[in-house]
Amino acid sequence: MALLDTTKDTQGSGLASVNPDLASERLTASFCVPRLTAVLDGGAERTRLRRVVADVIESDPVFSRENQYFQSQNERALAGDVAFLLHRVFMRSISVLGSDKQVAKWIPLATEYQLIGSYAQTELGHVGRSATHAVVFAQLYIHGKCYGVHPFIVQIRSLQDHSLCPGVIAGDIGPKMNFEHIDNGYLMLKNMRIPRENMLNKFCEVQPDGTYVRRGSQKINYFTMTSVRISLISDEVILPLMKACTIAIRYSVVRRQSKLKPGDEEAKILDYQTQQEKLLPQLAAAYAFHFINNYLHELFDRGYKEIQGRNFDLLPELHAFSSGFKAMVSQYCTSGVEICLRACGGHGYSLLSGLPSLYTKILASCIYEGENTILLLQTARFLIKCFSAASAGQPVPPSVTYLAAMKPGKCPAKDKLDFLSPDIYTEAYQHAAIRLISSTAAKLQDLIQSGVERHEAWNQCTVQLVQAAKVSNIFVLI
Amino acid sequence: MALLDTTKDTQGSGLASVNPDLASERLTASFCVPRLTAVLDGGAERTRLRRVVADVIESDPVFSRENQYFQSQNERALAGDVAFLLHRVFMRSISVLGSDKQVAKWIPLATEYQLIGSYAQTELGHVGRSATHAVVFAQLYIHGKCYGVHPFIVQIRSLQDHSLCPGVIAGDIGPKMNFEHIDNGYLMLKNMRIPRENMLNKFCEVQPDGTYVRRGSQKINYFTMTSVRISLISDEVILPLMKACTIAIRYSVVRRQSKLKPGDEEAKILDYQTQQEKLLPQLAAAYAFHFINNYLHELFDRGYKEIQGRNFDLLPELHAFSSGFKAMVSQYCTSGVEICLRACGGHGYSLLSGLPSLYTKILASCIYEGENTILLLQTARFLIKCFSAASAGQPVPPSVTYLAAMKPGKCPAKDKLDFLSPDIYTEAYQHAAIRLISSTAAKLQDLIQSGVERHEAWNQCTVQLVQAAKVSNIFVLI
Repeated sequence: MALLDTTKDTQGSGLASVNPDLASERLTASFCVPRLTAVLDGGAERTRLRRVVADVIESDPVFSRENQYFQSQNERALAGDVAFLLHRVFMRSISVLGSDKQVAKWIPLATEYQLIGSYAQTELGHVGRSATHAVVFAQLYIHGKCYGVHPFIVQIRSLQDHSLCPGVIAGDIGPKMNFEHIDNGYLMLKNMRIPRENMLNKFCEVQPDGTYVRRGSQKINYFTMTSVRISLISDEVILPLMKACTIAIRYSVVRRQSKLKPGDEEAKILDYQTQQEKLLPQLAAAYAFHFINNYLHELFDRGYKEIQGRNFDLLPELHAFSSGFKAMVSQYCTSGVEICLRACGGHGYSLLSGLPSLYTKILASCIYEGENTILLLQTARFLIKCFSAASAGQPVPPSVTYLAAMKPGKCPAKDKLDFLSPDIYTEAYQHAAIRLISSTAAKLQDLIQSGVERHEAWNQCTVQLVQAAKVSNIFVLI
Repeated sequence: MALLDTTKDTQGSGLASVNPDLASERLTASFCVPRLTAVLDGGAERTRLRRVVADVIESDPVFSRENQYFQSQNERALAGDVAFLLHRVFMRSISVLGSDKQVAKWIPLATEYQLIGSYAQTELGHVGRSATHAVVFAQLYIHGKCYGVHPFIVQIRSLQDHSLCPGVIAGDIGPKMNFEHIDNGYLMLKNMRIPRENMLNKFCEVQPDGTYVRRGSQKINYFTMTSVRISLISDEVILPLMKACTIAIRYSVVRRQSKLKPGDEEAKILDYQTQQEKLLPQLAAAYAFHFINNYLHELFDRGYKEIQGRNFDLLPELHAFSSGFKAMVSQYCTSGVEICLRACGGHGYSLLSGLPSLYTKILASCIYEGENTILLLQTARFLIKCFSAASAGQPVPPSVTYLAAMKPGKCPAKDKLDFLSPDIYTEAYQHAAIRLISSTAAKLQDLIQSGVERHEAWNQCTVQLVQAAKVSNIFVLI
């Protein structure tokens, strides 16, 4: 990670241009750098391709971000960093939830950018000034009866002159901590009429006479969110931590401060134990999350295939798992980036280090696509449900079979060296997870039996439930 | 704190203008709001005065910050927020370290803003584009012999046309995460000549023939830093947390989201247990730090008086204590502000909430005026020194007499209610502090006896030393 680009630096630009302190550190690597680079990229061919693309971009001044921190907002918007993330969410919603006919109609238009899509919920949304169409999740009523939340494609702006359609009020929500160029918007719809066929209808349909037909689980409508949540972890959460580690560790090698030994030259700050303690765990975490994320994507692809075949069994597990993982990784990576920033002292606080913009960007990942506490409570709800099932001898999904068997006993570690064994941790986290879940389930039960209403009992247990979800996440992932 | 302005809101503007959810929460206060407000302000008269000043400022459009997040940097610089903090540091250095004659010459000029002062060390500094004079801490050499770091008043710009003086290179270090309007600068001096009487000479002097005369401890030169460190805690560290708590708790009362009970209206998010767990500890900490800070100022004033009388005995303790306190409080308050920001979800991420600017500002307090890890190691060095003295039966300063007596035994808590007793915590932290310090001292000794050089042994113990300093801080403060 922190060494990711070394082969390029040393091969491309020639050793001569590399800072000597950096060069000497690199000579001490105990592993094969090109091989690790290829593993991280997903194969040597992808490494080659990435470098070709990066070279093209770096050599074209149009893409230069060299002066970005001295540019005005409009100049920066032209220089790059324009995100069409929500356009991709729009497309993903249609791909997942649309019928073949709907996919055939809308996806080519979106692919060619003949329309700009967005995604809107009954929450502070993402619409702003660019989008022409939005997938709006809204309650479906037929003849006064509510059928719950469904996805609708709504045109909100003219494709001729980009003016808002009648009945649409939309605008930008104002300045944020980062994402300056992205128009997160608000959207109000009043007496809008949309064609019946604009409801995404792969899994449910309203027929011309008003009959409602369902072809699968209602929960499928949340699948877009699960899918978006999983897709953003790599680029928006893990990658910023990787970059922050690279910046902070390289800085710590070229920055010298104070003398470790009187008479010596000033020491590389990476040689200070406290600096290592700050940065190396972040680097290790970045690697760990990278590989866990690969695993999550395999799981998701498997689930996606089953759903295409109208088997929805994996949905609850996938939802619980992806929620917990997103919360854990975004929390950890955000705090990791902050540690990297602070480990560079005043230089980390300078925008020119790149660290402040990484921090203010990654911080948002703890809030968007499911605020982390809410997500952990989703995971907890799944765990409590599975714990009750397991206790009653009913079958549970494979990832939570451990809930069926509480092993008694003490930590088997006898010596400090035992703490180098991964098994010790797996067992300890499994033990902690079961204890937290079972004790919270018991507290919940006690409260209800003592006459506290169910919703209030749940609220009184949420701090413990969040803790149980966190520990279970760690157990499932190690 | 979160209720600080309630008497004003309800008395001044009339109850009618207060959000009804806020008004109903305020009715439940179990304490006398005006009395607590007066305690926080330091007396009812000061509350009255604060309100008079605030009213004047709020009613003058020149001071309006209503549109600040939509203004360009230059517009904002005009609208307020221009800081002369380092001018104050300049003045404080002269007041503390200057002779009566120097004080009489420079302080009136600085008070009238006829010069703009700054503070410069051999580090990334604070000089930029505004300052005309700087107190520069630099090595003093006389006839080739080094006498260590001393403070000098150096004129760096013309008072006529603000051009840089010959031999001076200075400029702004560039954009930062916050403090956009403050020109943190770099300063290079080449063959500068300054008059002999510009060395601040209350405690030491160079006579015309080059004789060096000392009138006190060399450590007094660090006293400016200690003094600045203490003076900024209240405004730059505790106040931002107070503001963040006020914003986040008020928001949590007026923001309703989801139903706790089916059929009810949506609940105030403050009614969710997880929201309370996030915010209330931050509010409690803000109160605790406010009162600890008062105590620190008393201690400092006592120390300052003794130093004026040339008694330097309190200096090491004051340095260790203020270092540890600054590190602990800035760390805690920074993380507290982040918690408040995240607890407001997407609204906290909006600049309009005020929380992002509080966060990006307070974060700097972990870095400036002594980076926190460095400060904790200063505290640790003092603790190890005192522990050795105490072990050898020598006297130690009052705040660390506990190091002389390691009480054996287990935690006396028998029941969960015992954890409501402060004594339990005092004893536990004392126990932990002594154990950490004594075990680190022992490790240090072992390493040195096994042949590791002293500086390297120290480096190998720094992670533990930082931990020992943190725990001791907490113990001394509770």
